[in-house]
Amino acid sequence: MAQMLAWLAPVASVIGLGVAAYLAFWVLKQDPGNERMQHLSGLVQKGAQAFLFAEYRALIIFALVVAVILGFAINPLTACAFLTGGLLSVVAGYIGMYVATRANTRTTQAATKGIAGALRVAYRSGIMMGLVVATLGLMGLSLWAIFFLVFHEHPEPEIVDGFVMGASSIALFARVGGGIYTKAADVGADLVGKVEAGIPEDDPRNPGVIADNVGDNVGDVAGMGADLYESYAGAILAPMVLAVAMTASGAISGIDAVIALVLPLVLSAGGIIASIIGLFAVNTNDSSKIHKALDRGTFLTSGIVFALILVSVVVWQMYSDRSTLWLFGSAAAGLAAGLAIGKITEYYTSYHNKPVQKIAKASESGSATNIIEGLSTGMLSTVLPTLVLIAAVAVAYVCGMQAGGADAAVQFGVYGIGLSALGMLTTTATTVGVDAYGPVADNAGGIAEMAGLPPEIRERTDQLDSVGNTTAAVAKGFAVSSAALTALALFVAFKTNLDAGLVADPDLVPMSISLDNPFVIVGVVIGAMMPFFFGAMTMGAVSRAANAMIIEIRRQFREIKGLLAGDPEVEPDTEACVRISTQAALREMMLPGILAVVIPVVLGILDVNILAGFLIGVLACGFLMSVYMANTGGAWDNAKKYIETGAHGGKGSDAHKAAVVGDTVGDPFKDTSGPSINILIKVVTVVSLVFVPFFLTLHGGFLHGLL
Amino acid sequence: MAQMLAWLAPVASVIGLGVAAYLAFWVLKQDPGNERMQHLSGLVQKGAQAFLFAEYRALIIFALVVAVILGFAINPLTACAFLTGGLLSVVAGYIGMYVATRANTRTTQAATKGIAGALRVAYRSGIMMGLVVATLGLMGLSLWAIFFLVFHEHPEPEIVDGFVMGASSIALFARVGGGIYTKAADVGADLVGKVEAGIPEDDPRNPGVIADNVGDNVGDVAGMGADLYESYAGAILAPMVLAVAMTASGAISGIDAVIALVLPLVLSAGGIIASIIGLFAVNTNDSSKIHKALDRGTFLTSGIVFALILVSVVVWQMYSDRSTLWLFGSAAAGLAAGLAIGKITEYYTSYHNKPVQKIAKASESGSATNIIEGLSTGMLSTVLPTLVLIAAVAVAYVCGMQAGGADAAVQFGVYGIGLSALGMLTTTATTVGVDAYGPVADNAGGIAEMAGLPPEIRERTDQLDSVGNTTAAVAKGFAVSSAALTALALFVAFKTNLDAGLVADPDLVPMSISLDNPFVIVGVVIGAMMPFFFGAMTMGAVSRAANAMIIEIRRQFREIKGLLAGDPEVEPDTEACVRISTQAALREMMLPGILAVVIPVVLGILDVNILAGFLIGVLACGFLMSVYMANTGGAWDNAKKYIETGAHGGKGSDAHKAAVVGDTVGDPFKDTSGPSINILIKVVTVVSLVFVPFFLTLHGGFLHGLL
Repeated sequence: MAQMLAWLAPVASVIGLGVAAYLAFWVLKQDPGNERMQHLSGLVQKGAQAFLFAEYRALIIFALVVAVILGFAINPLTACAFLTGGLLSVVAGYIGMYVATRANTRTTQAATKGIAGALRVAYRSGIMMGLVVATLGLMGLSLWAIFFLVFHEHPEPEIVDGFVMGASSIALFARVGGGIYTKAADVGADLVGKVEAGIPEDDPRNPGVIADNVGDNVGDVAGMGADLYESYAGAILAPMVLAVAMTASGAISGIDAVIALVLPLVLSAGGIIASIIGLFAVNTNDSSKIHKALDRGTFLTSGIVFALILVSVVVWQMYSDRSTLWLFGSAAAGLAAGLAIGKITEYYTSYHNKPVQKIAKASESGSATNIIEGLSTGMLSTVLPTLVLIAAVAVAYVCGMQAGGADAAVQFGVYGIGLSALGMLTTTATTVGVDAYGPVADNAGGIAEMAGLPPEIRERTDQLDSVGNTTAAVAKGFAVSSAALTALALFVAFKTNLDAGLVADPDLVPMSISLDNPFVIVGVVIGAMMPFFFGAMTMGAVSRAANAMIIEIRRQFREIKGLLAGDPEVEPDTEACVRISTQAALREMMLPGILAVVIPVVLGILDVNILAGFLIGVLACGFLMSVYMANTGGAWDNAKKYIETGAHGGKGSDAHKAAVVGDTVGDPFKDTSGPSINILIKVVTVVSLVFVPFFLTLHGGFLHGLL
Repeated sequence: MAQMLAWLAPVASVIGLGVAAYLAFWVLKQDPGNERMQHLSGLVQKGAQAFLFAEYRALIIFALVVAVILGFAINPLTACAFLTGGLLSVVAGYIGMYVATRANTRTTQAATKGIAGALRVAYRSGIMMGLVVATLGLMGLSLWAIFFLVFHEHPEPEIVDGFVMGASSIALFARVGGGIYTKAADVGADLVGKVEAGIPEDDPRNPGVIADNVGDNVGDVAGMGADLYESYAGAILAPMVLAVAMTASGAISGIDAVIALVLPLVLSAGGIIASIIGLFAVNTNDSSKIHKALDRGTFLTSGIVFALILVSVVVWQMYSDRSTLWLFGSAAAGLAAGLAIGKITEYYTSYHNKPVQKIAKASESGSATNIIEGLSTGMLSTVLPTLVLIAAVAVAYVCGMQAGGADAAVQFGVYGIGLSALGMLTTTATTVGVDAYGPVADNAGGIAEMAGLPPEIRERTDQLDSVGNTTAAVAKGFAVSSAALTALALFVAFKTNLDAGLVADPDLVPMSISLDNPFVIVGVVIGAMMPFFFGAMTMGAVSRAANAMIIEIRRQFREIKGLLAGDPEVEPDTEACVRISTQAALREMMLPGILAVVIPVVLGILDVNILAGFLIGVLACGFLMSVYMANTGGAWDNAKKYIETGAHGGKGSDAHKAAVVGDTVGDPFKDTSGPSINILIKVVTVVSLVFVPFFLTLHGGFLHGLL
């Protein structure tokens, strides 16, 4: 029975979890350094744990309320799946944070001996996180899918959808909350420390530094993990839902139906194994080759996945009468697009290339030209990723249509889009790993600075960190393109389910969400507004929280005698700053999070056409805004770093001061608003997908009534 | 014959032109002040004229190439209409610029006697421009419409469409070119003069000041005029095209068909007369009531138009079996939305309100927080205008459906959307007038400063100018919402014509541009990308040109002995700066302009579904980006002005320095990129509309082939 292949997914998950456990223990076994280092790391651990616990406490109420609503409006099992999806996200985030906040000091300690060891600790803790994210996502989703899609006489996608909705909701809060936390601390600490007091970054006298380090972990580790966990689950789900719909409508049957259904699980399982193999390729003793080493891991993993996709469709072709070989094009298009967008992002945000160097040059005439050049570069940087993304969609769709042949061209076409999203996300474990390595290296540098270790240690961690900055930008590019592709696949699933429900009820006819219906256009415009609204809310939140932080740090500098003078007996009250960030993040994340869930439901209750337009508006405009904000921020950051290498007068020059302004503006751009919009795209789509049965019941025969 | 009512439009145009001529002569008759003032004004006149001539020369080739293509691809008469539309735009822009550059010194001179006289000169020159823009637009369009729609046995909308396309193309170049010109000069002059050399704004020693003053005229007068001229023509055209389609499809007939066709002309004619009446309401001797006086003019005009709409539909109702009274709701919704969006824009950009004051406050912690707060405010400011706009669309559509009844609900619904755009734009003459008054007052202040007049003169012109800043922001809000509504109406016309062509050919079936077609979504995403691409191109152009300007001004300060020291014998080489702005604007405007025309045609050749999606993507995302950029820039500008009133330390304080950064970044935002995107929305739509017959011929029976 080909269905049995579905079990490969949980099996691969168990293997992946085993490797992750091994890596975690390996990291924790390393030397954590001297007492001062352990103390500092302990502060970060405590802060991060306190924040995550507080965040999870706040989310329990939200999750329970939503679960009850889901239980009544949709199905009690959907509510259970929702809770599982959310819970596993929380577990993955917590484990990742736990190891990352302990890997920092161990990376610093390893850096005392050389760069290779430090890279190994940081990267292994990162890839551990990546594996946990991917395996928990795959495990949870595959088990629900096995029981309610693969081995169920009447597949019930609305139950499995709930899992992804759980993942989405948690991801949104984690990203928004984490993003506000980290940037409030970062902006606040920098503005008072670097700009006003004139002390270096990560100086132990600055009470905001611990909060800043905590932020890296809750934002870039836990937040990014939750983000990709969700994309990953969504990308696996979408083609499965489409396969179920194809089977239900009679477009496919027999072995085709089975393979179409289990293929996403098989590919995901293979992706996890490929990521584990890729892990061994990352190793170097040469500090100039860190980036190459990381790239080697990514490319090796991708290469294996390419081969795996090929083998899978060849096997399918052997059993099928259709030209299923074409589906290789669909899945490969997604994977290739992911790699290409990563490279494009790198081009626009790394200081080895012209765009960032031009921003650095513009800093010579002051901060205004730095900002103008940065914004203009960021806008321009959206063009190529957009073209790559739509090329992938078009290729995936057309290849799918070829596979489908005359009788099921459209169905296979949209299935192909689903496969392309999945293809892109098969390498999730590696991508998260490469990204989560960044904050560990960053923290390691902070600990080296604060613990007063010799400067060459800090230099080594800085080398790791500067590569981490680029990989973080690349991961953001990947996160947003995968979000767009996943959202598109989920949107197609949404429309397909809606139509299926309409066909099943003899009173209804399939709807056309056509652009000549003004309500659809109204929906698109509202959708296009959402990223701006979200951007405003999250930027405003960072601004407010950073202000509170600034006031507190100024107070400490003023009131704690001897602190600024550097008296070794005097310690700043770092916990006060941690508290400010925590409270601000919790307070400010609720409204955006709730709106993202509520608005699609309200629009769907009003009119399904508005909702459909809305989803596409959010998708299109959100993708652009997210790329724009992430790249602008990354480019500003590295323009500053470029000047710090000595260009245009180097550190302390007027150009540097101007570049610091851009960097500060870029902080909420790239780490709060951009990523939040990114998740918004997915949340609204998956919520709409889950509520399809509800909309169908509600509108019944009146679905066309209003219009 | 009710058709004869169509002649009201050219008649009203002639009356309007007469009043405009009277106003022009009145303004030119005023005392132009002393020799020094006349000399300065002469420099501005010469610079503005040289730029416009150079711009028009560059556009002749473009216009002729497009006309030849149109002649072959569509219809020789369409090509003629295209050329007329472009030519009249050029004429209107030139006349407006001619009077405005002569009104500046006359306003300064009048200000020596008091504020009332100065207001009168500045406002009359502005409203003269408004009348020229509106009357030439209405005259040209109505004559083409009378001959090829109203009194033509087989109406040929594709001919009249050409007129609007001509208006669009010129508007795009005028806005992009004018925007680059004005901001290159402004940013360059400010950065070297105010920031580096520490001399006041408009100081006669600064060689960039004349170019800056020229820029106000070519950007804010000629550019804004061309922009609204185009919206106006488009808004009149769209409901007429829809009326023709309704008649052709048999949805309406008899008197209904005639009135539906001539109503847009009647309302526009009435709007011009109402604007003339409103003109007399603007008059005050009290400097604190300038804004109120201007508002009074706008509200009086709007009130008359409301009444006129009501009378028109009541008359229609008397002759019709349908509930055409409902159409009052459609037209009034547009007019009301225009007023509401104006007020919302004022709220977000005037320093009497909290948003701008918060930006000013944030400037205390430096330019980074000023920028963050500004961007966040700008994003937030998109929410209400969007909601108002979609409410207007929904109301217009639903009211139209009521008027149409069961048999023609959708047709009347979209006609209602057309009427709402028209309703908003009936007050175009007043809106342009209120806006064009701003740069005249601004220039008047510059001349007062440069001519060394007593400070109280400058104070008076500054009072006029500060009101002008707010009205300019309001006009921008109006321009973008009217652009969106017009584009939407034109999009509906595009779709309707496409369907009509398909129905006429028995081989074809009406297409559904449904969002479940991935190519439509691909189109939406490409469309959403365009505003970012345009933003990047125009911001980059300003940045490059400003840099060239900075280098030149620095050179003059360095090489011209005695210039900075203030030697009265030494004059800066202002012409060199004028040349830099002119060349930069001409060079940089071509690519964006050509792309805006070419891309929709290419997409339409590829696939009409992609094109349809593209148009909606540009519309939705472009509307948001344009509002965002215009409001952010306006808010930054006024935050700086607020600090200059003495808040947060006043002029010269650190907060002020930080606010200057925001103001400088805001310059290209609000005056180059935002307005350019605004026109982009309309250009792509009207080009697509004009090329419908070409697409139909090209794709023929294969329209559904690819998909």
